[in-house]
Amino acid sequence: MKAVVTVMLKAGVLDPQGKAIGHALNNLGFAQVGEVRAGKIIELELAETDPAAAKAAAEEMAKKLLANMVIESFKVEIAV
Amino acid sequence: MKAVVTVMLKAGVLDPQGKAIGHALNNLGFAQVGEVRAGKIIELELAETDPAAAKAAAEEMAKKLLANMVIESFKVEIAV
Repeated sequence: MKAVVTVMLKAGVLDPQGKAIGHALNNLGFAQVGEVRAGKIIELELAETDPAAAKAAAEEMAKKLLANMVIESFKVEIAV
Repeated sequence: MKAVVTVMLKAGVLDPQGKAIGHALNNLGFAQVGEVRAGKIIELELAETDPAAAKAAAEEMAKKLLANMVIESFKVEIAV
């Protein structure tokens, strides 16, 4: 079973990587680009066969290692 | 209109970051974790109002700047 964990900086936390990407796109001629936020995506192959157990395990992993809960939020999706 | 670009290493390309995350999770006691792949997610705020135009623009940005097409693949989703 595959779990996909998406980690983004919380709203209000300065995102220098996103700002740099936004400026680079503007400089390349993409004037329509406004705010840009950059994040991480982690795809986990899990041995669990129960979707609820897989989701709970992935959330625990996110809290313990994958996300810094002070400045980041995360979302777990289970791919069936 | 918001476009979300997901950039992942192509299948078969070695992913040291994913491997490091997998080992760290195993060491933390998450024995059920198999292969791990790490990628990037970029949320773009676009001035376009037409979803098809926004998707086309985001794909061009991904090809020109956000993804390295030699080793990475990308996916664009438009959030309405």
